[in-house]
Amino acid sequence: MRYSKAFMPTVKEVPSDAEVASHKLMIRAGLMRRLSSGTYTYLPAGWKILQKIMNIVREEMNRCGAQEILLPSVQPMELWQQSGRDVDYGETMCRFKDRHGRWNVLAPTAEEVVTNLVAGELNSYKQLPFNIYQISFKFRDEFRPRFGVLRSREFIMKDAYSFHDTPESLDEGYQIMYEAYKRVFIRCGVPFVIVLAESGEMGGSGSHQFTVPCESGEDLIVHTEDGDFAANIEKAPVDPIKAEPSGEPVEQIQEVHTPGVGTIADVCDFLKTSPEKMIKTLIYTTAEGKSAAVLLRGDHEANEEKITQQLGGIQNELAQPEKIKEITGADVGFAGPAGIEDKVDIMIIDQAVSVMAAGITGANKTDYHLKNVVPGRDFPLKGEKIAVTDVRNAVEGDTWQGKKLLFKRGIEVGQVFKLGSKYCRKLGCNFLDVNGKEQTPLMGCYGIGINRILASAIETGNDDNGIIWPVSIAPYEVIIVPVGKEEENAASEDIYNKLTQAGIDCLLDDRNARGGVKFNDADLLGIPLRITVGRKSLAENKVEVKLRRESDAVKVEVSEIIEYTVKAIDSLKSELSV
Amino acid sequence: MRYSKAFMPTVKEVPSDAEVASHKLMIRAGLMRRLSSGTYTYLPAGWKILQKIMNIVREEMNRCGAQEILLPSVQPMELWQQSGRDVDYGETMCRFKDRHGRWNVLAPTAEEVVTNLVAGELNSYKQLPFNIYQISFKFRDEFRPRFGVLRSREFIMKDAYSFHDTPESLDEGYQIMYEAYKRVFIRCGVPFVIVLAESGEMGGSGSHQFTVPCESGEDLIVHTEDGDFAANIEKAPVDPIKAEPSGEPVEQIQEVHTPGVGTIADVCDFLKTSPEKMIKTLIYTTAEGKSAAVLLRGDHEANEEKITQQLGGIQNELAQPEKIKEITGADVGFAGPAGIEDKVDIMIIDQAVSVMAAGITGANKTDYHLKNVVPGRDFPLKGEKIAVTDVRNAVEGDTWQGKKLLFKRGIEVGQVFKLGSKYCRKLGCNFLDVNGKEQTPLMGCYGIGINRILASAIETGNDDNGIIWPVSIAPYEVIIVPVGKEEENAASEDIYNKLTQAGIDCLLDDRNARGGVKFNDADLLGIPLRITVGRKSLAENKVEVKLRRESDAVKVEVSEIIEYTVKAIDSLKSELSV
Repeated sequence: MRYSKAFMPTVKEVPSDAEVASHKLMIRAGLMRRLSSGTYTYLPAGWKILQKIMNIVREEMNRCGAQEILLPSVQPMELWQQSGRDVDYGETMCRFKDRHGRWNVLAPTAEEVVTNLVAGELNSYKQLPFNIYQISFKFRDEFRPRFGVLRSREFIMKDAYSFHDTPESLDEGYQIMYEAYKRVFIRCGVPFVIVLAESGEMGGSGSHQFTVPCESGEDLIVHTEDGDFAANIEKAPVDPIKAEPSGEPVEQIQEVHTPGVGTIADVCDFLKTSPEKMIKTLIYTTAEGKSAAVLLRGDHEANEEKITQQLGGIQNELAQPEKIKEITGADVGFAGPAGIEDKVDIMIIDQAVSVMAAGITGANKTDYHLKNVVPGRDFPLKGEKIAVTDVRNAVEGDTWQGKKLLFKRGIEVGQVFKLGSKYCRKLGCNFLDVNGKEQTPLMGCYGIGINRILASAIETGNDDNGIIWPVSIAPYEVIIVPVGKEEENAASEDIYNKLTQAGIDCLLDDRNARGGVKFNDADLLGIPLRITVGRKSLAENKVEVKLRRESDAVKVEVSEIIEYTVKAIDSLKSELSV
Repeated sequence: MRYSKAFMPTVKEVPSDAEVASHKLMIRAGLMRRLSSGTYTYLPAGWKILQKIMNIVREEMNRCGAQEILLPSVQPMELWQQSGRDVDYGETMCRFKDRHGRWNVLAPTAEEVVTNLVAGELNSYKQLPFNIYQISFKFRDEFRPRFGVLRSREFIMKDAYSFHDTPESLDEGYQIMYEAYKRVFIRCGVPFVIVLAESGEMGGSGSHQFTVPCESGEDLIVHTEDGDFAANIEKAPVDPIKAEPSGEPVEQIQEVHTPGVGTIADVCDFLKTSPEKMIKTLIYTTAEGKSAAVLLRGDHEANEEKITQQLGGIQNELAQPEKIKEITGADVGFAGPAGIEDKVDIMIIDQAVSVMAAGITGANKTDYHLKNVVPGRDFPLKGEKIAVTDVRNAVEGDTWQGKKLLFKRGIEVGQVFKLGSKYCRKLGCNFLDVNGKEQTPLMGCYGIGINRILASAIETGNDDNGIIWPVSIAPYEVIIVPVGKEEENAASEDIYNKLTQAGIDCLLDDRNARGGVKFNDADLLGIPLRITVGRKSLAENKVEVKLRRESDAVKVEVSEIIEYTVKAIDSLKSELSV
């Protein structure tokens, strides 16, 4: 490609909403442009990168026997009602009535439709296992789209679905995809960790997340120092913490007037205490309509996934203010554990609360708190409806299996799930086993965010001058920059033609521009190898070669530049081979 | 690919709504499955065919310098309001409110969004011309989706957009795409004709349609016997027809009572006459709110595009019954030309009406008609607001430039348009010309229906046994069918491995099934070349080779089969090379 013909407009200014490196650099390097909140047009260079990523994904899927299909993106609402996910997805899933009055959804994913498809084709265990996938347009109406394509509304996802007759077969199919995912991310040149994950609204029994560690990531990863264990924050367990040393016996409960002081911070301020001395009481309503009180230390965060596991359903919500008043007798902010066990169906006490010597809590009375509330004395730790367990997020200082837990942020680029029989049961997908008996298949599903691979490659590969692409997904492998006049242009043209013929993906910067402008754009675009054809070197029959990721250039004889470049690119590629 | 592993379920029964060959055979051969009215899932073999077609399109677009991008499919309604096409598309375009209350559309095409994109990047004439395209998901909520993927709601379209600074440059860019389209359809192996077309709701000044002639097509093509001229029915002009021989002078107008008899057929029946003896009067309301009477011979059909040209706007509608009553004084069915010139703003008389000796018409009085109405005597043929011209569809017997017009049906697979400045004007897209003066670019747009290429290849390539694919887009180039036991299987396996290594796209039918079943599926799938490895031939060290499109097989030495097959496939490919 000749730069003068390329629709690749680099710009200096970035929009004010661009907070992270990938967002800024994708705009600056002319890879994409914003259309509306969370939707972007991919310009030729950006789209070419996505195509390279899709090809790697496609090759690795095909290599392990998965077969590519294309499912409709506009799907009948009925299927989503059958699985119940029309409710789970809420406003994130866009819906519209078609001209004949039927409700459709704009697919955020495709478990329902693929299960419906397989239900029509599957008869016998002999057809199992198989794995089908698509790489297609998806839409999720995020409440707050941000960070460019890291959290956009429209995106491209690879979603694969496997079907199995036994748990062993599901394990095997899951492991095959797990290994394929590793190859995908190695080949794409993005650093990644694999962490235990929750399956969330997908349902199912097991899940791993493939995460690119980087500061701008929205996911929090928890891992032991030795790396033996890693999970995302939703899934990370913690060891029980030790009981506070019991000093003198705690005085009796004391009621204090705390008018209009409902938040942890306000109470701390008002009573001159600190959050770890407080117990907060959260009231939940479960999917079945039961009420639950969840007790946490004031400085700890509720872990919704752990709470969900305890409550055994997928739709638990913090109770509405009226419900809280009905249960506790007080406004929001004044719930407390003393006496609450008689008012709720379930009481979950975080282990860290159970070992507190005493705490400050709400009084179940508007504008009042209690001091000196002692777990086990002022509210029970045992009982039919009571559980003491781990329902909080891990924090600095926590351990797991005796090992210190460390934290880092990351971008989720892929996730694999063992779904089990959920969707097949709900959508009537069955097969006859070897005995002619009807069985429900077990299912796995496997997603990769194509656009996020692109963005995370930038997040983990950039410097002050621009992007530093892994060679496998770079918009071009080599850029040739003539700086001079006719002679330099002619030599560059010759190198361009020969490298292109040798199968190297080249950009020739044939623009009528100063060397400085060309070098800046080459760095901004992040092309792995630059060949500079300048007057001084060329007079010595040499050109300069510089890798984007290195600071020094080397001089190479013009007669050797083709061979040298082919070898250099091969060497970069071999770093990413599997 | 091994057949035993392929998710390629062939079936015997077809759904009752499958009327045309492509729909039936795509279901039977396991290429696709229906999800809902007008939406289909592409199974692996069907999707592979689409990918082959997309690759051909991509290669030909890139070859002529067009650059691939990806535009969002969910687009802000505002842009469509700016162009006015939110109204033009009506219910065909799906709309939905997102969670923040903003209206979005599901893109049926992308002129607005691409113009908006270019408006942000275009500054100088030096950047022009360029051509950008995408191959992407589109949705049109057809009132009556039918014929499988020939008229589906969700489909894949290649849409290209070119931008120019002069009409000459637009002509050149248009011609480049015109030639590229020819190459695409030749390479895809579908027969096609190129016809003059109307640009319809796209706006613009010129258009050609690429149409695959076949009986199941929804488009009507009109062409001269020698092929020098071809157009679709909307665009096809006709020579004026000769005046009826004037015999005796026609008697005076006579009013007849025709109670409740409003349609042409009813009147003919009631008055014992025939449609060509009648004059029908259609009342239109133009976009500017004017009224127009259009006169046509009773047996002729109005050509909306020709009428639109006459009325000079894009939104003309047949007037509502109340409006007709207001203008003519009569209910629908009783409008007539006598006296109408004083009641409407515009009067358009089809040339065929002007040469009638006399006609039967409505009386502008409910339940009455007039006999012996003579053009020029009982209503004027000249005047300020009167035009005598061609506003009807061509019919059998018509000529153009003296040559007889013939008719055939076809499937539109591509269309190219000179859009001119319409979208750039409406969406504020400008550039500075060589004198630093602001100018509006001229635009061309160019569409290809990817799915329709697939379907029209089937419509024009099938027999009683199934599909007959052009080699370039066949799901596999070669199928190897072992019929026998271990020895035949081993020989087949060997041929499969060697052909695959030689770069041939092979399917090995390794299923444990009878020869008849395998042959039937091979024919149904339409794979261009079949190699049968049977016991009898193999005993002589031979295998049978049969082209799908031919009825006879030839025997080839096993030692020569690889070379033979590679040559045969090359030969098939060379038929489709450009």
